[in-house]
Amino acid sequence: MRILVLGGDGYLGWPTAMFFSRTDHEVMVVDNLAKRQWEVEVDGAPLEPPPTLRHRLRVWSDVTGREIQVAIADIAENPRVVYRVFEDFQPEAIVHYAEQPSAPYSMVDRNHAVYTQRNNVLGTLNVLHAMKRHVPEAHLVKLGTMGEYGTPNVDIAEGWIDVEVNGRSDRLPFPKLPGSFYHLSKVHDSHNIHFACRTWGLAATDLNQGVVYGITTDETELDPELHTSFHYDAVFGTALNRFCAQAVAGVPLTVYGSGGQKRSFLNIRDTLECVRLPLEHAAEPGEYRVFNQFTEVFSVLELAELVAAAAGKLCLDARIEHLENPRIESEEHWYNPRNDSLLALGLEPRLLSNELVETMMRRIAESVDRIDRATILPRVQWRQDIGTATPS
Amino acid sequence: MRILVLGGDGYLGWPTAMFFSRTDHEVMVVDNLAKRQWEVEVDGAPLEPPPTLRHRLRVWSDVTGREIQVAIADIAENPRVVYRVFEDFQPEAIVHYAEQPSAPYSMVDRNHAVYTQRNNVLGTLNVLHAMKRHVPEAHLVKLGTMGEYGTPNVDIAEGWIDVEVNGRSDRLPFPKLPGSFYHLSKVHDSHNIHFACRTWGLAATDLNQGVVYGITTDETELDPELHTSFHYDAVFGTALNRFCAQAVAGVPLTVYGSGGQKRSFLNIRDTLECVRLPLEHAAEPGEYRVFNQFTEVFSVLELAELVAAAAGKLCLDARIEHLENPRIESEEHWYNPRNDSLLALGLEPRLLSNELVETMMRRIAESVDRIDRATILPRVQWRQDIGTATPS
Repeated sequence: MRILVLGGDGYLGWPTAMFFSRTDHEVMVVDNLAKRQWEVEVDGAPLEPPPTLRHRLRVWSDVTGREIQVAIADIAENPRVVYRVFEDFQPEAIVHYAEQPSAPYSMVDRNHAVYTQRNNVLGTLNVLHAMKRHVPEAHLVKLGTMGEYGTPNVDIAEGWIDVEVNGRSDRLPFPKLPGSFYHLSKVHDSHNIHFACRTWGLAATDLNQGVVYGITTDETELDPELHTSFHYDAVFGTALNRFCAQAVAGVPLTVYGSGGQKRSFLNIRDTLECVRLPLEHAAEPGEYRVFNQFTEVFSVLELAELVAAAAGKLCLDARIEHLENPRIESEEHWYNPRNDSLLALGLEPRLLSNELVETMMRRIAESVDRIDRATILPRVQWRQDIGTATPS
Repeated sequence: MRILVLGGDGYLGWPTAMFFSRTDHEVMVVDNLAKRQWEVEVDGAPLEPPPTLRHRLRVWSDVTGREIQVAIADIAENPRVVYRVFEDFQPEAIVHYAEQPSAPYSMVDRNHAVYTQRNNVLGTLNVLHAMKRHVPEAHLVKLGTMGEYGTPNVDIAEGWIDVEVNGRSDRLPFPKLPGSFYHLSKVHDSHNIHFACRTWGLAATDLNQGVVYGITTDETELDPELHTSFHYDAVFGTALNRFCAQAVAGVPLTVYGSGGQKRSFLNIRDTLECVRLPLEHAAEPGEYRVFNQFTEVFSVLELAELVAAAAGKLCLDARIEHLENPRIESEEHWYNPRNDSLLALGLEPRLLSNELVETMMRRIAESVDRIDRATILPRVQWRQDIGTATPS
């Protein structure tokens, strides 16, 4: 299958590109490399310095004998390149990670909110139009987020809700309560994609992904230079990854507020499976599917306690510290999302065990000297701008 | 009250600015005048050539002795001006019409879809951030559209839906099924505004407006140069206005498909009342209200028949012609939207009567020589690009 991976330089995009290349698919990656700039901007370098994208691709070719094609391009700002890539490569599937992925980044100030929605929403609009023009029968697999739903007081179904009003009924898009301008951008994407499917007959699977943890996949382990970019900072580092780095670095595990807020999680290796399964069982023309992509639910405090316990076994002294919550979010709420679709397709979840957390910490420990402790504490407040009285 | 009217040069914005200025409010208008450019682009000149905005304001001052302040600025592209206007004028209320208002325009091609969502969504993001910075206690009255809902198989409540899932219940945002990239932009706005209210404590009323008809208000009648821009073309002309112009011009009334599609409508004079009422009964800090703003529901065919009948009384020979529907929409569907909120605030609907339609047609007849019949037939197809294989 010809698979186009948009955002193929990122934490998930790069392992995804390798994963499909290794299994004999023809893979092309597109990336504008902007994430590397954002990392410098917010002082959030990944744990291990990533080689350039083209260098990674050469190493991949040397190690495996397989070629991954590449285009360095901004899909939001350069539609001509997007159209040309779609026309020339003729992808049968598009895996779309090419978005600004951080909630705190989108909440820094006006400029970052506008940038995030412009980049994410307009980039996806360009992708939809390029599909319509050049590959109307291709299958779009778009990475959304479980955060689109927020925390409603009812069970979270997969994309749809059966409603009954005054004796009439319908199945409608599940109402969304996103918690940041980043999460909002994914909600906007979902509405735009759904419209393109029902109006133009495109086929799409919207993967509402939980928080991903993990540092290695089978492919990243083939060569030291094939690692993916692992973040532990307050802007790009997600909860479990950050807790593990904090434990290794000997600083407190920072829980926002009480830590009672529950979220859904999955292993980076399961991310690859969750993309593989819908690609192998594609949506029909005109179909817009929504799969909730996670394997387990934890409260943030449960996660921190799990990491602290595992750290103890490694003779690390991990202490949990509750910070004033920089976000506006419920810390006590109902949370019961469904994830039947991917399980039905055959997903076998790798559940989070103490053993895995220990493995992650051992791996992080190899680079402990590179952990910059100053980048871990949150600096972005949901209710207070960083910046000045004039817009930035 | 200091009222800032964003989009104050438009079909509704200009009458709104005059309406509040006349009732002793302090009014400032902001507009980038882009609509005048779009009109030329799509060959859709308004029925009567509009004076420049500054000229209109001088006439207004001469006729009434009242001053309306003005800033020519693009709220999506020039946030610094937005912030300065908010800081200097210190609006107590913001009436926000400053968006690209045409569904067909947003469906021309990729460029127009992206332009519409960039202009509308990012402009509103700038407004929200400027409010947060400079007037966090002001009241935003934002014009949305009834088209955000689409045509679900259940009654359409005002913004919210009570859901029950597995014995638990919640009141959540009403699910949306918008029918064009324009309608989608309003859905995105709604989500962004709702977030700003619940996260920053802003106060907002989202007016989901039906299709507006009419050509005059009390203020437009004060002087011939105070008229508003009336559209009858296929891109910016809405159903009833277009039918009246067609009847006067002696060309067939063009109904898309069977005409069974039902929509909600209101008189332009009621638009003014529907903005006045929430301004006088403002949302609370942190409150996000949604009012459905219309007075009547008609099918498109019913409207055409109503116009044809009224035309007959004026000895005009109005014939109805069914065109192949250029849009992707249901032509037979349930449609029962609620509009209790504005009625409860005291709205007294001006219902559509034969008499009003006759009055409109008489007014249009004064400018019949200016009607360009070539601009009336739809050229934008929901499923087919205008343009070339490279993106425009």
